[in-house]
Amino acid sequence: MAEEVAQEQPRPTAPRPVRCIVKLGGAAITNKGELESINEENLRSACAQLRHAMSESDGDGATEKVLGMDWSRKPGDPADPAVDAEWIAGMAGLGLDTNFIVVHGAGSFGHFQASRSGVHKGGLHSTLVKAGFVATRISVTSLNQEIVRALAREGIPSVGMSPFACGWSTQQRKVLHGDAVLDELLDCTILSGDVIIRHLAQLLSPRYVVFLTDVHGVYDRPPTDPNAVLLKEIEVDDNGGWSIVKPALLQGNTKGVEISVAAHDTTGGMETKILEAAVIARLGIDVYITKAGTEHSLRALKGDVSTDSEDWLGTIIRSSK
Amino acid sequence: MAEEVAQEQPRPTAPRPVRCIVKLGGAAITNKGELESINEENLRSACAQLRHAMSESDGDGATEKVLGMDWSRKPGDPADPAVDAEWIAGMAGLGLDTNFIVVHGAGSFGHFQASRSGVHKGGLHSTLVKAGFVATRISVTSLNQEIVRALAREGIPSVGMSPFACGWSTQQRKVLHGDAVLDELLDCTILSGDVIIRHLAQLLSPRYVVFLTDVHGVYDRPPTDPNAVLLKEIEVDDNGGWSIVKPALLQGNTKGVEISVAAHDTTGGMETKILEAAVIARLGIDVYITKAGTEHSLRALKGDVSTDSEDWLGTIIRSSK
Repeated sequence: MAEEVAQEQPRPTAPRPVRCIVKLGGAAITNKGELESINEENLRSACAQLRHAMSESDGDGATEKVLGMDWSRKPGDPADPAVDAEWIAGMAGLGLDTNFIVVHGAGSFGHFQASRSGVHKGGLHSTLVKAGFVATRISVTSLNQEIVRALAREGIPSVGMSPFACGWSTQQRKVLHGDAVLDELLDCTILSGDVIIRHLAQLLSPRYVVFLTDVHGVYDRPPTDPNAVLLKEIEVDDNGGWSIVKPALLQGNTKGVEISVAAHDTTGGMETKILEAAVIARLGIDVYITKAGTEHSLRALKGDVSTDSEDWLGTIIRSSK
Repeated sequence: MAEEVAQEQPRPTAPRPVRCIVKLGGAAITNKGELESINEENLRSACAQLRHAMSESDGDGATEKVLGMDWSRKPGDPADPAVDAEWIAGMAGLGLDTNFIVVHGAGSFGHFQASRSGVHKGGLHSTLVKAGFVATRISVTSLNQEIVRALAREGIPSVGMSPFACGWSTQQRKVLHGDAVLDELLDCTILSGDVIIRHLAQLLSPRYVVFLTDVHGVYDRPPTDPNAVLLKEIEVDDNGGWSIVKPALLQGNTKGVEISVAAHDTTGGMETKILEAAVIARLGIDVYITKAGTEHSLRALKGDVSTDSEDWLGTIIRSSK
């Protein structure tokens, strides 16, 4: 896949630098264990926080009239959407710095189809894998469509991009997702959103990267364990080694550390995630891992987090330099 | 757009030649005048005919058990989809020559959003155009998703590709559609499925191209006119000139000829369609324009049409050489 990532499409205008790449974790925006079920409240909240973080004004944006950009019919609603074109045309601008890229996981979408067919193991010549490849893409692209609609309803101009279809365009304000893709060795496989983020960070050098998930960050053991300790700061050196900086009591401990992921996220798990985050941090880009829908996620999305932020709950992964 | 079209993505395996490029006309698969409404019966019928045309056996395929590849939940159906993985894994193969490319129009999807915002005229700096661009893409990609699902339910392995997202990958078995895209001069515009087909035909040299629409083909005047005559054969010369071969009574008449399109298809109309078809025909590729859901469309999809087919209802556009 690396070759596909490396090729940029021609761009009609010079790109602005990307401010932030955000991972909406599948565990945060879907309901675990329930096939193809979106956690509507979490998704809406994440989109509202994204809008807030993009806002160029100091206000909280709560009183502003939002320019909804989903003008499609709602399922079951026979009424045509109302679009006040005159009001929109008269707006001075969106007042948003929309230079974000959103990548989302699949959560309870795609997993059923992929696991029934074994599409992650490759072998498109097999009828089962071929059918599973098609079924997996239908499932994950339907989630992508709903996320684009949720962002658009929140007034964030967004366009969906499937890794399979686009070879990872590096243009901006795109919403990408974990996907079933072709693979040179395996024929096909599942591409994780975490891997996508790492490649995009390497190409686009965002100011910071945020992973929104369903727990507060990286723990020293499964966060369901009552003795689990949140790792607030992890330092990555040039050789790929990493060490815990905070909390001080765990300094030097690099064993037994897990990042919590939902049980149905089979595309990476702890090792993939922490390795991808470490690669990004080595580029000098801070990575914030935190819980979606909290004051901590809003601060992370704004980039308003530092290693001195005692009241911020989450994990910062950064370069030791 | 031409530059985007010209760049092919790297392919892991050598491509097989494409047998047929099919345009599912927006007027045929959606309900005209009703916002974002799919003509389910026409779409189902078109997919069934496609499967039939792809079938490698001589039977009509009606008695074969279809391997459905849409394993996602149906809206309103709480039951998980049933997937008989064992049966699928035991199949010798699909028994289909799936080397088709499907391009579909937007019909009653996207038009409302595009016309309210003027996205076809460009100007992404305008708030209205920007919002309309997002809204248009949401609408057309939702149609694309439903068409991919309909093909998958019919056992045709299909993956959706948005022109916007993919820069028109020339890989095979893709389902493309008219779309809002970036444009070097206008910033953004609407790209017609007919233009996509012409570019794909130039790149991939299919054996034949089929346009499925809601009328029998090209007429010498609007087909609602009771005196309208169906043009059965049009010949295109190397200079781009064209002449009517059949019916003989219209030979030499190149004035006043219209191809019927739905009133809400604003992306091209008569001139674009016939010009695109003529460009394809000049490559030596026969173009069949016929009515979806008829015995004539099935024959066209099979490539079972010749200029001697007296009982075939439709228009053949071909090179004079």
